[in-house]
Amino acid sequence: MADVTTLVEQARAGRPRAVARLISLVEGASPRLREVMAALAPLTGGAYVVGLTGSPGVGKSTSTSALVSAYRRRGKRVGVLAVDPSSPFSGGALLGDRVRMSDHASDPGVYIRSMATRGHLGGLAWAAPQAIRVLDAAGCDVVLVETVGVGQSEVEIASEADTTVVLLAPGMGDGIQAAKAGILEIGDLYVVNKADRDGAAATARELNHMLGLGEARAPGDWRPPIIKTVAARGEGTDEVIDALEKHRAWMEERGVLAERRTARAAHEIERLAVAALRSRIADLSGDRRLGALAARVVSGSLDPYAAADELVAGLTQG
Amino acid sequence: MADVTTLVEQARAGRPRAVARLISLVEGASPRLREVMAALAPLTGGAYVVGLTGSPGVGKSTSTSALVSAYRRRGKRVGVLAVDPSSPFSGGALLGDRVRMSDHASDPGVYIRSMATRGHLGGLAWAAPQAIRVLDAAGCDVVLVETVGVGQSEVEIASEADTTVVLLAPGMGDGIQAAKAGILEIGDLYVVNKADRDGAAATARELNHMLGLGEARAPGDWRPPIIKTVAARGEGTDEVIDALEKHRAWMEERGVLAERRTARAAHEIERLAVAALRSRIADLSGDRRLGALAARVVSGSLDPYAAADELVAGLTQG
Repeated sequence: MADVTTLVEQARAGRPRAVARLISLVEGASPRLREVMAALAPLTGGAYVVGLTGSPGVGKSTSTSALVSAYRRRGKRVGVLAVDPSSPFSGGALLGDRVRMSDHASDPGVYIRSMATRGHLGGLAWAAPQAIRVLDAAGCDVVLVETVGVGQSEVEIASEADTTVVLLAPGMGDGIQAAKAGILEIGDLYVVNKADRDGAAATARELNHMLGLGEARAPGDWRPPIIKTVAARGEGTDEVIDALEKHRAWMEERGVLAERRTARAAHEIERLAVAALRSRIADLSGDRRLGALAARVVSGSLDPYAAADELVAGLTQG
Repeated sequence: MADVTTLVEQARAGRPRAVARLISLVEGASPRLREVMAALAPLTGGAYVVGLTGSPGVGKSTSTSALVSAYRRRGKRVGVLAVDPSSPFSGGALLGDRVRMSDHASDPGVYIRSMATRGHLGGLAWAAPQAIRVLDAAGCDVVLVETVGVGQSEVEIASEADTTVVLLAPGMGDGIQAAKAGILEIGDLYVVNKADRDGAAATARELNHMLGLGEARAPGDWRPPIIKTVAARGEGTDEVIDALEKHRAWMEERGVLAERRTARAAHEIERLAVAALRSRIADLSGDRRLGALAARVVSGSLDPYAAADELVAGLTQG
């Protein structure tokens, strides 16, 4: 097996197998996970991470594909992380998902990875940021993270992007569903796709009203734009990219990008720290210490809180 | 406000207001929580905790009420903890829920507490064991914990009892639903309620088949009985109590009761320890330490795992 340094070099040279291997190493919590993460760290931070989310049927995959094409025309390397519970590919790990976006199958400047949420939704919030780090370190200029905005987990992933795009399609249903799922608020920009259908203008108006986009804002505040697209024909895609670039420039100018990335990193560190502590406690389950404490609680000589304090004190001494 | 020692004395003397006050103190994570838990510890362990669970409509409340009456006839003090998302009483804290079981309203040997799960399901696994401890310390001989077997949280609570009773009613629907929810496996005994209706025998047969109750077992193993009841008329309730006593005696004889209680205590200690560690980490969120680590991750000089290690090391030094 190639060593980590070699894999990282190959990934940066655009070799998809090396990227796939690295993602497998980080998402599977392999023993080499830490080695990989340490090797990737200095190479990260170059990618602009864009989250795309929306209810099923709004055309997320088509929109993602259109964005990939448009970015490629601008000479950018693009990574795609498709997190989709409706994906027919279970198990999570697809090596270069060529079925999904066959347009880009032969393009070495594009790397596409599917993560099925089926069966391991809990592990998604864990695996997605690490896969993004691999794509970032591999030299992608843009990483598109496509999620179905139906669950808390997906919303979390979407909101961890640098810029979040919320997609809708004409018809009230979507709007209401999106509002319910709490994904409407997280958009930095909004796309009404399938804008050649009846009701596109009404959806945009409704959205504008619901989000209060027409209201006065402090000067310099970001006003999320609503863009109409027909992704299947590539219509409006350049406008979306222009809006993304505008948002990115606005974030950089105001320090918002650094803020968001720092908050995201803090959140990830917290999550990993809690997981580490939790697993230390789990290690003790087979241990005499926890058993002895539990026996004392059962006998009434100790209450559970005091027992937890002792357990924590025991942990922190190593 | 009465001090904790006085409250505990009054609760043991059977004063419902003191019990209510103690439960409020432990379920609300009040500053006096630890004081209360420490005061309760030496007084716990006397109560036999029976979990009753089943799908909506099987007659859980009626069965609970019938069991209360039967235990009272045997001179036992009974506590009831009704955890029910369909309860019309939101907010969780009902002082002596007199609507639910009006038969027992004026009986000083019965204490009934409702916990609504609505809106704070996550907090339930937290609050229920502590409320059970209060009822135990208050001198209840039996604590009945009634839960709707529809969610993971309810199943967890039910399975933390000394003995778990799974209720069903005639008709395939219930059986399948219960199996889906994963509650079928957790029964130490099974009750087919509404046994005067068509299909009761079929439900019992089906259950017997699904659980393999007819299969050979090692000598001394517990074979969960299936008991038919008409709780609304109190029919079969004494048989249920006999079976409960039989199960309890079997558990005591084989050391299973002590094992279960120790495992339950260990689980609770773990949960409290994780919560304590998590809140220590949360305390750091506004702290410079986490911010500084996050900034180093963003700059690429540190990976998130190494950052989490540093955070944990910092925690454990106090």
